[in-house]
Amino acid sequence: MSFEFTIDVTDGRARSGRLDTPHGALETPVFAPVGTQATVKAMRPTDLRDLGATLILSNTYHLYLRPGDELIHDLGGLHRFMGWDGPILTDSGGFQVFSLSDTRRIDEDGVTFKSHLDGSSHRFTPEASIRIQENLGADIIMMFDECPPPNDYEYVKQSLARTHAWAERCLAAKTRPDQALFGIVQGGVFRDLREESARYLIDLALPGYAIGGLAVGETKAEMAQVLDWLEPILPREKPRYLMGVGAPEDLVNGVLRGIDIFDCVLPTRIARNGAALVPGGRINLRNAQYTADTTPIDPHCDCYACATFSRAYLRHLVLANEILASILLTTHNLRFLLRLMEDLRKAIRKGTLAEYAKRFLQNYEHQMTIDE
Amino acid sequence: MSFEFTIDVTDGRARSGRLDTPHGALETPVFAPVGTQATVKAMRPTDLRDLGATLILSNTYHLYLRPGDELIHDLGGLHRFMGWDGPILTDSGGFQVFSLSDTRRIDEDGVTFKSHLDGSSHRFTPEASIRIQENLGADIIMMFDECPPPNDYEYVKQSLARTHAWAERCLAAKTRPDQALFGIVQGGVFRDLREESARYLIDLALPGYAIGGLAVGETKAEMAQVLDWLEPILPREKPRYLMGVGAPEDLVNGVLRGIDIFDCVLPTRIARNGAALVPGGRINLRNAQYTADTTPIDPHCDCYACATFSRAYLRHLVLANEILASILLTTHNLRFLLRLMEDLRKAIRKGTLAEYAKRFLQNYEHQMTIDE
Repeated sequence: MSFEFTIDVTDGRARSGRLDTPHGALETPVFAPVGTQATVKAMRPTDLRDLGATLILSNTYHLYLRPGDELIHDLGGLHRFMGWDGPILTDSGGFQVFSLSDTRRIDEDGVTFKSHLDGSSHRFTPEASIRIQENLGADIIMMFDECPPPNDYEYVKQSLARTHAWAERCLAAKTRPDQALFGIVQGGVFRDLREESARYLIDLALPGYAIGGLAVGETKAEMAQVLDWLEPILPREKPRYLMGVGAPEDLVNGVLRGIDIFDCVLPTRIARNGAALVPGGRINLRNAQYTADTTPIDPHCDCYACATFSRAYLRHLVLANEILASILLTTHNLRFLLRLMEDLRKAIRKGTLAEYAKRFLQNYEHQMTIDE
Repeated sequence: MSFEFTIDVTDGRARSGRLDTPHGALETPVFAPVGTQATVKAMRPTDLRDLGATLILSNTYHLYLRPGDELIHDLGGLHRFMGWDGPILTDSGGFQVFSLSDTRRIDEDGVTFKSHLDGSSHRFTPEASIRIQENLGADIIMMFDECPPPNDYEYVKQSLARTHAWAERCLAAKTRPDQALFGIVQGGVFRDLREESARYLIDLALPGYAIGGLAVGETKAEMAQVLDWLEPILPREKPRYLMGVGAPEDLVNGVLRGIDIFDCVLPTRIARNGAALVPGGRINLRNAQYTADTTPIDPHCDCYACATFSRAYLRHLVLANEILASILLTTHNLRFLLRLMEDLRKAIRKGTLAEYAKRFLQNYEHQMTIDE
């Protein structure tokens, strides 16, 4: 199966192109909405398609626990199960094991953890993660890694050795030719560890490289620094995926530094809290100032919510805890980010990314405290 | 403004035709989904239109309390506020005052009650109900009535006198020519009281008549009995509205007895509990038997949920408490009832209603315990 990655045009360190997958091609740079439990919360697959989504991320940890990866396999795989015939990416379950499960014990072989749903005991190893991801059947699958706190040098160094050993075991365990296994560069905020991790994984000749362990507590400057270190090292001809990052300014900063793939729960999660992305920041519809506001969330947005409803109506829905509030704010926030990615791709093709990014980030910096 | 009601064809006591409103014509018999808080839960207006909904009911009590009828008026009325440009019906608030508010005191002039939201004290009178409904601006508005327990003859009789006096006050208070005020026949399960109520309201020459106080504790046989008593008395040339009734068998039985308009929270409420309407009854997707069921809810249904997803996936969404479960089950249940109404209208036009109803109700009786 082909996972050809074609870079059509570059602009500075940024690149735009396409990644072929068994379920169709992705235009890059691309933002993937997150469908944790085999659904992007409050969205139907047809809505995601209408919004311009092409790649969906789903979570191995959650689907393993419920409804079970074997059931999904028996029902024809994740694409058929969730009614999404486009490309899907699954994470390895590692991040959730470390962030969600109640108690865990790490050894060199794997991780034993308790389910956040019912406290039952489970064990993930690199082999188990690959087996589960093969049962799910996503187009892009991820190596099982440890995601350590980014600022403890000794711990990160020790964790890195384990993560690299696990990468080799993942590669050895992989059997499906129709899935691309991406490596995950770890190393916290430390240049030598990040570079060592990148070089180790590059030697494995994987079809794509993710940068993990960011957006977990380090500063924005540290995140940019890590990307700046890795950009010249990671192979130019392979797709680069910045995991779990999706704030608008982070997407712009990531694309400027050569990132091709992003995913994040931010647009969907803040939507369910009543917040909407707008040029320059975000607004929270709960605020009293929107009580009689007849304008849409964003007059320049082409989404259904902005074409149809006032902020006053959306505020009412949020305060009344109505499902439609989640539907409409998710619609808008996803469209906002997917349109941003369209704009970034256009700017790269026109060779105007630096200007675009400068304007965007200035606007953002001046206004990002709009509501919060 | 015209509220012309045209009966095109009759079949037994059933009728099919159209009711003109300032926001378009309704084909009758019609089922109105309920949008309590200015949204049919989990549905966008465009979805409702796609499902074949033509009339939406919204609740005066809820909208008066939040966001406030004056705000909705100032924002251009309920149609614009909720993005629904078709006909809307508002109830009077009476039923909710008696069923939802914490404490209440009824006197001849009106009802004092405490908000179910914050315990604040409010007062509804016939004049207040009409003023609120005029602020909301629905096409069809309802008289303010008391909805008493249906089996206490003395109480129902005494309540009826008050309800009739209130009907006259509603009529006197009404000022907008672009709204039709419907009367509500009360009288519990008592023939003399129901007939007295109908005759009293008929004398007021209202543009439509509702039958209230049913589906509140009486038996199915008592409901049918009340409809049988009223059918020959209510003016044939006026639309008849059976309030709060929407179980599939009740729709069939109501249409057989000359009812033109129905509304009910049933399809949307049971959807949010994981239940789906199917021919012959309903199923609850929580049940373990659907764990690996690759069939749709109803193979004969033309809705998006049935065209796209398996019962196994829907069960997963219900158990995972995902918003998409509510969206898809609401989609299906509304389509199920709206398609039933289409079938009933067709059967009336073809003169085959009796057969259709017999087959439908037999099927229903044999299978209605499918899951519950």
